[in-house]
Amino acid sequence: MAPHAAPPASQAALRRHNLGLVLQTVAARGKVSRAAVAAATGLTRATISTLVEELLAAGLVTELGAQRPGTVGRPGTALAPAATGPAGVGAEVGVDHLAACVVDLRGEVRVRHVVGAQNRGRPAERVLAELAELLWTVAERAAELDLRPAGLTVAVPGLVGRDRRSVLRAPNLGWEDVPVADLVDGAAAGAPVTVDNEANLGALAELWLGGHGAAGPVVAEDTEDAPAEPPIADFIHVSAAIGIGAALVVDGDLFRGSRGFAGELGHVPVHPDGPGCSCGSRGCLEQYAGEEAVLRAAGIAPERPDALVALRAAAAAHDRAALRALTAAGEALGIALSGAVNVLDPQAVVLGGPLAELAPWLRPALDGELGRRVTDRHWPADAVRVSRLGRDGVMLGAAHSSVRTVLADPTAWFTRERAARTTP
Amino acid sequence: MAPHAAPPASQAALRRHNLGLVLQTVAARGKVSRAAVAAATGLTRATISTLVEELLAAGLVTELGAQRPGTVGRPGTALAPAATGPAGVGAEVGVDHLAACVVDLRGEVRVRHVVGAQNRGRPAERVLAELAELLWTVAERAAELDLRPAGLTVAVPGLVGRDRRSVLRAPNLGWEDVPVADLVDGAAAGAPVTVDNEANLGALAELWLGGHGAAGPVVAEDTEDAPAEPPIADFIHVSAAIGIGAALVVDGDLFRGSRGFAGELGHVPVHPDGPGCSCGSRGCLEQYAGEEAVLRAAGIAPERPDALVALRAAAAAHDRAALRALTAAGEALGIALSGAVNVLDPQAVVLGGPLAELAPWLRPALDGELGRRVTDRHWPADAVRVSRLGRDGVMLGAAHSSVRTVLADPTAWFTRERAARTTP
Repeated sequence: MAPHAAPPASQAALRRHNLGLVLQTVAARGKVSRAAVAAATGLTRATISTLVEELLAAGLVTELGAQRPGTVGRPGTALAPAATGPAGVGAEVGVDHLAACVVDLRGEVRVRHVVGAQNRGRPAERVLAELAELLWTVAERAAELDLRPAGLTVAVPGLVGRDRRSVLRAPNLGWEDVPVADLVDGAAAGAPVTVDNEANLGALAELWLGGHGAAGPVVAEDTEDAPAEPPIADFIHVSAAIGIGAALVVDGDLFRGSRGFAGELGHVPVHPDGPGCSCGSRGCLEQYAGEEAVLRAAGIAPERPDALVALRAAAAAHDRAALRALTAAGEALGIALSGAVNVLDPQAVVLGGPLAELAPWLRPALDGELGRRVTDRHWPADAVRVSRLGRDGVMLGAAHSSVRTVLADPTAWFTRERAARTTP
Repeated sequence: MAPHAAPPASQAALRRHNLGLVLQTVAARGKVSRAAVAAATGLTRATISTLVEELLAAGLVTELGAQRPGTVGRPGTALAPAATGPAGVGAEVGVDHLAACVVDLRGEVRVRHVVGAQNRGRPAERVLAELAELLWTVAERAAELDLRPAGLTVAVPGLVGRDRRSVLRAPNLGWEDVPVADLVDGAAAGAPVTVDNEANLGALAELWLGGHGAAGPVVAEDTEDAPAEPPIADFIHVSAAIGIGAALVVDGDLFRGSRGFAGELGHVPVHPDGPGCSCGSRGCLEQYAGEEAVLRAAGIAPERPDALVALRAAAAAHDRAALRALTAAGEALGIALSGAVNVLDPQAVVLGGPLAELAPWLRPALDGELGRRVTDRHWPADAVRVSRLGRDGVMLGAAHSSVRTVLADPTAWFTRERAARTTP
């Protein structure tokens, strides 16, 4: 929601802006009266009526029937985001899996598919052809639920081009300059395709859905009077898989850096003279806390498909090698993060992805290093938080990113629908 | 200048906003016609005329006489910021010096005083009483030039409270909870007092006056057609004195962090098991590249008042201990900065303060570490820049910060002047 954005210039832009404002308000509240939408947006009731009629006609909003039967006068009907119609599709290319899901305008996951795949070193065309197949399957399921893709966001573990359609470099996949969007366009059912870095999307999921206090959920409680305030959020989101990705959320927005490469926590030097890294440097965090390094240190072959499950089981069984490996990883994470915290002064650090599952064994050493090394003496002990989104975080961030695009500008969807109806 | 800011709400706010807009445009151009001000601000010529009359009457703007005599029609007179009237005062409390300067609306330094002082461990009241005396001297000189303090900004090497009036902690001075503004208020001649961290003000000076390409000077060239675009700027500014301070400039603004503590580069771990630091941690950058550490490693007593001069002389004379010490410092700076660059992805790193003077001996090792450790392969070789402001950077940032406050809202100055005239 952007009620404080610069005012739009033309009547068409005004209508587009206000339609988005109303739809976002309905989606944020989940169930809301026209009067409450007027109060939240500052638009007149007459304007709200006109805009709501359009959204009802387009099937983006539904009426829930009489609300507050106890009140005097004609009972208003509550509005809710539609459970059918446009949906956001999120996809993820992992090093060892492919995933896709469909999220409706209410923010609910309606279809979810995750398949194991050894993508490292495979030709990008092959991997993306497989993803396209997965996307077709997911779209068919969605169609059965009367949902149609309105946008597709693809998460990749690598540096993404400025156009958000291609991957410049994904070392853990062995990709260089891959036109990802072009290669999956055919499976997007006409929906616009956006490519983004997995760490960025994981951080956005945390911001939108994580429920971590200040970085709380956007979906406000169902009360008429609840202020529709956007969540305030300033945090570093760290997700380690094969590589270690991080993303910075500052004032509720992704901080992308001057070239879009911010968040490369995995290559912060921890022990400058340490082991050589794939990046050409030495002693990077990835060499201590990357999945492969931790598995090797724990005596578990990283090639095992169930390697992380085995690591968790070993740690839970007090296996000394596993505990030592996780303690060393926690220490390295704490060292790298304390540097980042001293430079950035965030409100919190959130551990996401597979890191979240290993948090019980990482945290003692991690918290110890942060406690010793963060300069701010008031750095709160609970500033390190564990994501509750688990491994779905990245995929959910991708899907919700698509949903939010529809909510912000429903007219783009109207236009596409009209075009689809007029062309046979 | 904020021509894209949200529109002001009332007529009074509109006038205040527009007066600031016009004055900032005149100050940015240095010499400019009314027509060019109208073009740059988007205001009508009639509005410009009214606003300019007010600024002329208040003595904030002067007329330079006929401009462009060759053109047809009544020649316009060029406008310029006044060389008398309100001025910004900048003061600096260093560990080994006190400084103050006065900058007029044209951005020119008119008075400048720097005195040596051993402030470490002295009672804050004594240090600030001495600063107040210096400020009186400076104000007297300014009065002789017909300049009156419109704002005082005091730079301190420590963490500053949210109210920007007190220092929470300045370890290198031995200060805890010092109400700096209250203690120097009497010497501010009624001007509002603001306290800020020295690294922040050094970075702002670099942004406003440094002339480093994208982080270029605000003062545009004197051409009627030059677009009055604000400089785009994304950089880490590092200044090492006794401590190592850094500040982040993102999109032309200071990035202060969630608690105002961002930029603590001096306590980024370089060798996690290294020597103990005053902050309670181990192996912080300050232990390798802080002034005291470098001087000791070079065999120069840090207590010597001319210690840094001696270090530079020794390095210039190829003294092996001095060269080794500076190489080690450059290496440590490079390691800590490469971590910060990987996380933040800035356009540039600027070395300021005493670091700038030592740059020739620091840079080979520093550049080498950055070259090896920065993940972005397109990180340009010239991304490390050396400040041309020298040791005056912090004080200049403080004074210009006060000047900019007057430029942004001249009505605050009008009000103060009126009050001064009516009270005997």
